[in-house]
Amino acid sequence: MANRTDQLLRAAWTDQSAELPSHALRWLREETGLGHVETPTRALTAPPSELSDKAREVLAGIVGAGNVLTDDAARLGRAGGLSYLDLLKHKGIGTPEVPDAVILPADPDQVTAVLKACAELKVTVVPFGGGTSVVGGVRAEGAVILDLARLDRLVAVDQVSRLATFQAGVRAPDAERELAVYGLTLGHVPQSFERATIGGFAATRSAGQASSGYGRFEDMVEGVRMATPRGDWRLGVAPASAAGPDLKQLVVGSEGAFGVITEVTVRVRLLPKVRRYEGLVFDGWEKGSEAVRKLAQDRVLADVTRLSDVDETGVSFALTGGLKAKALSTYLKARGIKEPCMLILGWEAQDNHELTVRRAETLRRLKGAVRLGRPLGEAWKHGRFNGPRQRDALMNAGVCVETLETATHWSQLTKLRSAVRTALTNALTEGSNKPIVMCHISHAYETGASLYFTAIVPRAVRDPENQWRQAKTAACEAIEGLGTISHHHAVGIDHAPYLAAEIGDLGVDVLKAVKNVLDPEGILNPGKLIP
Amino acid sequence: MANRTDQLLRAAWTDQSAELPSHALRWLREETGLGHVETPTRALTAPPSELSDKAREVLAGIVGAGNVLTDDAARLGRAGGLSYLDLLKHKGIGTPEVPDAVILPADPDQVTAVLKACAELKVTVVPFGGGTSVVGGVRAEGAVILDLARLDRLVAVDQVSRLATFQAGVRAPDAERELAVYGLTLGHVPQSFERATIGGFAATRSAGQASSGYGRFEDMVEGVRMATPRGDWRLGVAPASAAGPDLKQLVVGSEGAFGVITEVTVRVRLLPKVRRYEGLVFDGWEKGSEAVRKLAQDRVLADVTRLSDVDETGVSFALTGGLKAKALSTYLKARGIKEPCMLILGWEAQDNHELTVRRAETLRRLKGAVRLGRPLGEAWKHGRFNGPRQRDALMNAGVCVETLETATHWSQLTKLRSAVRTALTNALTEGSNKPIVMCHISHAYETGASLYFTAIVPRAVRDPENQWRQAKTAACEAIEGLGTISHHHAVGIDHAPYLAAEIGDLGVDVLKAVKNVLDPEGILNPGKLIP
Repeated sequence: MANRTDQLLRAAWTDQSAELPSHALRWLREETGLGHVETPTRALTAPPSELSDKAREVLAGIVGAGNVLTDDAARLGRAGGLSYLDLLKHKGIGTPEVPDAVILPADPDQVTAVLKACAELKVTVVPFGGGTSVVGGVRAEGAVILDLARLDRLVAVDQVSRLATFQAGVRAPDAERELAVYGLTLGHVPQSFERATIGGFAATRSAGQASSGYGRFEDMVEGVRMATPRGDWRLGVAPASAAGPDLKQLVVGSEGAFGVITEVTVRVRLLPKVRRYEGLVFDGWEKGSEAVRKLAQDRVLADVTRLSDVDETGVSFALTGGLKAKALSTYLKARGIKEPCMLILGWEAQDNHELTVRRAETLRRLKGAVRLGRPLGEAWKHGRFNGPRQRDALMNAGVCVETLETATHWSQLTKLRSAVRTALTNALTEGSNKPIVMCHISHAYETGASLYFTAIVPRAVRDPENQWRQAKTAACEAIEGLGTISHHHAVGIDHAPYLAAEIGDLGVDVLKAVKNVLDPEGILNPGKLIP
Repeated sequence: MANRTDQLLRAAWTDQSAELPSHALRWLREETGLGHVETPTRALTAPPSELSDKAREVLAGIVGAGNVLTDDAARLGRAGGLSYLDLLKHKGIGTPEVPDAVILPADPDQVTAVLKACAELKVTVVPFGGGTSVVGGVRAEGAVILDLARLDRLVAVDQVSRLATFQAGVRAPDAERELAVYGLTLGHVPQSFERATIGGFAATRSAGQASSGYGRFEDMVEGVRMATPRGDWRLGVAPASAAGPDLKQLVVGSEGAFGVITEVTVRVRLLPKVRRYEGLVFDGWEKGSEAVRKLAQDRVLADVTRLSDVDETGVSFALTGGLKAKALSTYLKARGIKEPCMLILGWEAQDNHELTVRRAETLRRLKGAVRLGRPLGEAWKHGRFNGPRQRDALMNAGVCVETLETATHWSQLTKLRSAVRTALTNALTEGSNKPIVMCHISHAYETGASLYFTAIVPRAVRDPENQWRQAKTAACEAIEGLGTISHHHAVGIDHAPYLAAEIGDLGVDVLKAVKNVLDPEGILNPGKLIP
């Protein structure tokens, strides 16, 4: 148990940075005006826990004294998630929001019991899975963290129906390992894959890098079990139903504000036996995005379909190192490509026949593109989880780096991309500091697509939080009316002020009414989701 | 306007029966013990309208005096939908539930104004589209009917995003006619196609005969506009979102209990240029359903995929007429088919290449089946909307005929089919009367399938309503815990008592809370959906 608890204590925000290659740093200095910055290295301290003795006693009675943690390490380890502001605080800029305690229930029944007790005690509760929220979804100052790490079981596999039921705290790599034993896969691979949990995916409507093929997480959810202060709630008896509104879709995306998801039954697929990833380059965003639209509307998308704009393509090529980048640029220019936009395609199939048939249908619609073959695809695959590590490294080098994402219909896509780019560029340009703003389509649908933005700029020395906030506000305001405030990062704290513009005042009233009926004391994840 | 109103007055329940062919009637007598029955022909009368003068005046002020109808013809024309009990009453057995008035608003704003006025007046309101509910969803005794017939406009087409916005009262054939001008189609073709409306599809989570290819109606809904007593509510700005729970999926399936859907934005597709329907026969249900499962899990379903069990296949063959049926039976026996189960497959494609590729992928997985080619497929297509007409004809011949449907995971499918068959057979067997109970898979998913049952038995002379109720209750109780109470017919009145077993008491509380916040006076479609 000691080892186990040690493992559970592994902080979500542990610095994951790799060293930035020197050519990347040089390039950043040239492009953005980045200077040398010392990142403060301050030892973090936690304020004293304010959990009452009574609460500790009651909670220990449910989960055992060893699973009510109030020591500094446990609490600092769950002080925020992986948002820019959270990380900034953990890097010594600002003060982390530290919970009063960490509760580790063993099973769904204990979760329900904890919630009932906390409702009675008026103790607020923040559910915590992988702690990878980038929108402040797990900040828990003045609350207890309900950590689902011990709900780590594969509950059932139905090989005939291709369904698997997981406890909410199972991390994605563990889920895949357990499914692989049956020759199955979930196929849900977001950038947070290495740490995120099944429950977190459901709570936030996650989308993965292969969601063009495997679907968004909510498409995979066939059943849910949620602990609420009013008891246990189970949904999902069939693949589809007309028995009234789909309440499952109310639980999925509820971000811990209605209850704590304790089990999820997901649709699984056969583990692919052959995979192929490759890269192509289009001349300009218009041609690239039109091609992706064609694939989506003809329903011949590759499982991974990711189109970078000129800026992101330029950064990708630049970071491969100076010499290679120049050769690539010359090669493309010779083939008439003036504004390279990189398209990564990936197929996962049961056999070569399936792969060949599907790939042929995709590629015959991409006549205008220059094929760069498998190395580009494999390079993308190799680095597919590097985002968080690169962000850590960039932040350590004095860079303000943030990502945000949205989605809209095809007819609005170019307008939305321009609006957000302009907003971010204007908000982040100051003196000699110039931001790099880049974008890709990460998920394509018949009627539209997502846009994923990354902005990089030297961190403001004075008030870096305000630098971030101004950019975030500008981007969110640019999105309003044109697209959704979040395609797959969820609402959390950061997007809550913009939710009413998207779902209307009646929509907010509906969310409040649902929360009120499931969590009448309002103890669950306050300040998140509901404005 | 006079012509228009005449048209609007066309009763939903108008007898549509064709003459039953003599060989069909002979066969029914042999199989079920059906005798000669005189259907009562009683002139229907409506009780006096109880709409107050004040309410009439207020409502006339909103929609115009000519659009507040209280005459008998208008009210009898909306007295119930197309459920067995509704039809029985219209055929003179029992008393129809007649509304007090029919209100015909012109646009979404008038709908909102009517709801606000009715909330103030405490007048209950039943929304009415095509009036094709088979679960009592539009019964309106003591209420006013809000008929959406005048909301009949195509509001917008976005050809780039492949989206179309329709007012709720547009009937399916009109929607297809308007889309065809743009070379587009919705592809939503339920058996109620000829009369049902876009708003009704959304309100009931409809599924069409080609939903294996085009998706269920809720999959097509990209945006909704709903009038509520608290005002207008719009949802849907992107193809997918992580901005909290999907409230669209709360509106879809709300059956007029939360508000009145006034506009729906739907994903549309290119009108197919080539179509092919064909029939195959498997030896027994197990082999047939395993084959459909394989197609669904390999994601190579035809757009139409419909597998009949032995009983339904037998009836289909018998109804083609004696000689043909015998020849077919001999042909199949010679090919080793002892228990013929018919599979109808239909592909709709842009060109022959697409059709050929997709068809090859499907058929190469169906090695064990005997192919009967296009005549069987075309025969199914020719008769695809005949269900309601046949039902009318059968009822006129003294037959109790009812359909019901459910869905479950593949591992439970055979168990569920047996349970419902047994329940219906036992409940409907009485004396020399023997029911025919038949079943087909109408919709297949990766994780499961729907089951659509039809039961036919001579109508009980004494208390035919009770005959129906006993069978319905037995079937619903058999479904409980094994599948959903409705795959695509919705809840209405008939399934409301079974909803709590499916979504839990907390689920029912959530529905009530949502209703309470949108319809605080509780005027909307009382007794439907929410138990």
